[in-house]
Amino acid sequence: MALISIIEDFHPLNSPRLLDRAAQLTPTLSRRSCKPASLCLLRADGTEESVPPEGLPELRRGDSLCLDFGEHLVGYVTLELDCAGSHQDAPAFLSLRFAETRKELEQDPAAFDGWLSRSWIQEETLHVDLLPHRLALPRRYAFRYLRLTVLDTSPKYRLVLRSAECRAVSAVDPEAAEPLASGDALLDRIHAVSLKTLAECMQEEFEDGPKRDRRLWMGDLRLQALSNAVSFRNFDLVKRCLYLFGGTRFPDGRVAANLFTRPVPEADDTFLFDYALMFPVALEEYLRETGDAEALADLYGIAMEQVDYALSELDETGRPNAQAVHDCFIDWCDELDKEACALAVLIYALDYALALARRKGDEARIEALPPKAAALRRLALDRYWSEEAGCFVSNGQQAPATQVWMVLADLGDPVRDRRAMEAASRMTGLRMNTPYMHHYYVMALLKAGMSRQAERHLKDYWGSMLDAGADTFWECWDPTEPDQSPYGGLIVNSFCHAWSCTPAYILRRCLRPSD
Amino acid sequence: MALISIIEDFHPLNSPRLLDRAAQLTPTLSRRSCKPASLCLLRADGTEESVPPEGLPELRRGDSLCLDFGEHLVGYVTLELDCAGSHQDAPAFLSLRFAETRKELEQDPAAFDGWLSRSWIQEETLHVDLLPHRLALPRRYAFRYLRLTVLDTSPKYRLVLRSAECRAVSAVDPEAAEPLASGDALLDRIHAVSLKTLAECMQEEFEDGPKRDRRLWMGDLRLQALSNAVSFRNFDLVKRCLYLFGGTRFPDGRVAANLFTRPVPEADDTFLFDYALMFPVALEEYLRETGDAEALADLYGIAMEQVDYALSELDETGRPNAQAVHDCFIDWCDELDKEACALAVLIYALDYALALARRKGDEARIEALPPKAAALRRLALDRYWSEEAGCFVSNGQQAPATQVWMVLADLGDPVRDRRAMEAASRMTGLRMNTPYMHHYYVMALLKAGMSRQAERHLKDYWGSMLDAGADTFWECWDPTEPDQSPYGGLIVNSFCHAWSCTPAYILRRCLRPSD
Repeated sequence: MALISIIEDFHPLNSPRLLDRAAQLTPTLSRRSCKPASLCLLRADGTEESVPPEGLPELRRGDSLCLDFGEHLVGYVTLELDCAGSHQDAPAFLSLRFAETRKELEQDPAAFDGWLSRSWIQEETLHVDLLPHRLALPRRYAFRYLRLTVLDTSPKYRLVLRSAECRAVSAVDPEAAEPLASGDALLDRIHAVSLKTLAECMQEEFEDGPKRDRRLWMGDLRLQALSNAVSFRNFDLVKRCLYLFGGTRFPDGRVAANLFTRPVPEADDTFLFDYALMFPVALEEYLRETGDAEALADLYGIAMEQVDYALSELDETGRPNAQAVHDCFIDWCDELDKEACALAVLIYALDYALALARRKGDEARIEALPPKAAALRRLALDRYWSEEAGCFVSNGQQAPATQVWMVLADLGDPVRDRRAMEAASRMTGLRMNTPYMHHYYVMALLKAGMSRQAERHLKDYWGSMLDAGADTFWECWDPTEPDQSPYGGLIVNSFCHAWSCTPAYILRRCLRPSD
Repeated sequence: MALISIIEDFHPLNSPRLLDRAAQLTPTLSRRSCKPASLCLLRADGTEESVPPEGLPELRRGDSLCLDFGEHLVGYVTLELDCAGSHQDAPAFLSLRFAETRKELEQDPAAFDGWLSRSWIQEETLHVDLLPHRLALPRRYAFRYLRLTVLDTSPKYRLVLRSAECRAVSAVDPEAAEPLASGDALLDRIHAVSLKTLAECMQEEFEDGPKRDRRLWMGDLRLQALSNAVSFRNFDLVKRCLYLFGGTRFPDGRVAANLFTRPVPEADDTFLFDYALMFPVALEEYLRETGDAEALADLYGIAMEQVDYALSELDETGRPNAQAVHDCFIDWCDELDKEACALAVLIYALDYALALARRKGDEARIEALPPKAAALRRLALDRYWSEEAGCFVSNGQQAPATQVWMVLADLGDPVRDRRAMEAASRMTGLRMNTPYMHHYYVMALLKAGMSRQAERHLKDYWGSMLDAGADTFWECWDPTEPDQSPYGGLIVNSFCHAWSCTPAYILRRCLRPSD
């Protein structure tokens, strides 16, 4: 996720007690040493040659060495640099480019002109005054490829890369989760890449992407927690993140869309209506796995505040007001009318809120929530279902996302749900752009009893990323538009993005591959 | 100085005893804290505004802040960076350019296409992941101007430079030397800037230039030692450098043109015939100041080896062979025929060698050197003086440098010397390009009794650098061609160069401003 919101003089509401508890739950990261799997030398004159692992090519002005580590890594890189020839009589001047994919590597950083900060491009330009030198880069990178280009040495000496190492970090051991053995090689591979994606994003927090924004987002956390529950089962990290969201909020108590953890935890001044509603959802799902009484006691009230806030954003007819609609993310799709989705996400969250109330024994809410949910479902059906169109319509607009969320809101008629999802599958406009949205699409297909189509879509959508060379699943992907970016340039897209890790969850918990 | 020579499998002849002594003499550098004198803000849209010292402008993508420290500095820079606006949600991406002069700052690094390494351009590109941040740059810079450009922040925040500091380093206190009070403001200023130049180049060694090559060159050392003797009188540093040159030499005993001191002292594989002959010259001049018996005992033999080598490079007629001529530096002037100069420098050095022999009581050399010098002087006169041309001619070529060195070789006729120097002053071709050469030109004028012309030239040449904005004197300068560079680009020229510091010596020891 990456959205820009700016509120002047924003002072989050912090709970030192919750933040202390979150700090106690900070994981110790596992580290493993990784070496390049293959090297390729690109000479200044354009000639290219592969380099045997023991090869130590001597590099002059303009030469590049491309290191392929063979897998996606998140970590810290150390290069052992040396020189050949006469004494080093001038600094070595180098550029480094780290890239998650080959396509990212091929982009020219200078050509980027998007709205997102170009500071996310993983590039370094540096001088080495004295060789030999052990260059331990202080920054963390997310990458499979590293290209070292010699901007200059001097006529007297050549640069030699003696060795390269990445100390890869994660809160979990990526090998620890059990592989899927479904009998379907593609599904097994999708499962494996989902878990690799998840493991790479599990650092001191659940990050949305280890390349960018490296940050804890509420909507992403909910999906990560689902896949974590069927694989690494690192529930302390989920708990830490829930406490962080509870520990630093908007001044009026709303859960922020995301938060910063450095230098100290601080809610971002960005609010998303649908993301805040994922707080009660994720809390209930966490409690289903753990039964953690402390978390229920500490976070129940905050979860209910999110529901209350969302309910307060409906007008007297039950329709989400303009602010709530504006504050909905749903998908990277500027043209999407999000009104129906906003209401649907709220209805969806109310069921989780009720489950929480029952855990807590909160009689008032146990009594109040069901009629409220029922009323909103009636309103939703009345306002957004079009018998004529055979699908849900939001302010005149027919969109796949609207069908998905209305189905997930569980309005109570499986036949209608199926009609809506079949309509969604035929729609050509307002395409879904993110794996985040595609996750909910698959879940809606399953909800509508269309498990064959759900499996087909899983294979088609996530499988097409594999066909396009994914080692980890991507932030945004439309197979018909492989170069799209919500940021104005592919080079800042994240190619290992948490919200795309849910096939692991779907395959283990929702879909029976043998259906 | 910067020359490129490459010898495969070069293994210097090292004397651990001399190098240990040199190491003991390593100075502790003095440090002083310097702040910018003025700031100028250049907005991305092209507008420019000066900034009051207490001002903290907020910088966005494309904005630049130019810091003028008001004087030339050699040192380590620390920037206190902060942000304004919303929370920093992306790294700050900055570029820094350090420049000794405004003209250097105006050059575009990307446009440099010379033969010298572009790694000498003082530029850094870096990311700051977390603000506020105390950015203590690890490299040393030589500069007066620092331009910070914000390559990107993000739409959410602006970068703020809270403060900037340079810890300036030198082996001496630049204020310690007595100012000249000649009654002539221009000469006083030339004297002051000479000493500032010298002080900036006095680091752990006498460097040729603190920006580039930051290295101990023999020809430069001799001139630096002259000005040091009339100002800072840090003779330990001179001694250290002489021991370094004695401690690591060519395998056959020749003193290298320059040497590296890091990671360990090592002679560069570059030999210059005239520079090696400056070893006995500089040793004798050092002993005149100090009477240092240890240095005489340790270095006398090495000094004589340089003389013997040079004498062995004359053919049976006394003419320098092609290798010796090729190995002469003299000046940055490719077209110059250096044969006469090579012989003249040798004759010049023989007088210093004889003085050393007398100190040492080396009877054999006291006896042998005078007739050898006399014979070479006769040969020089016979071969290079042209009565017809009224000047010295080397292989048909009339050049100022040839007159200068033949006069300094002291062939014994003041009237002829004057004719030669008057001829030199009228020559328009083969112009002298470096202050190194101009120093010897002034010395030759003085030798020929032309002190008024010497003073005039000092004022014209060094004064024109002041007119062109010099805070310290430059590596190369021809007032008629202000943008020339021996390296293919002004941006890598050194604008604080040791060999241009000799007016201090000339004004104190050689020239009587009241003449």
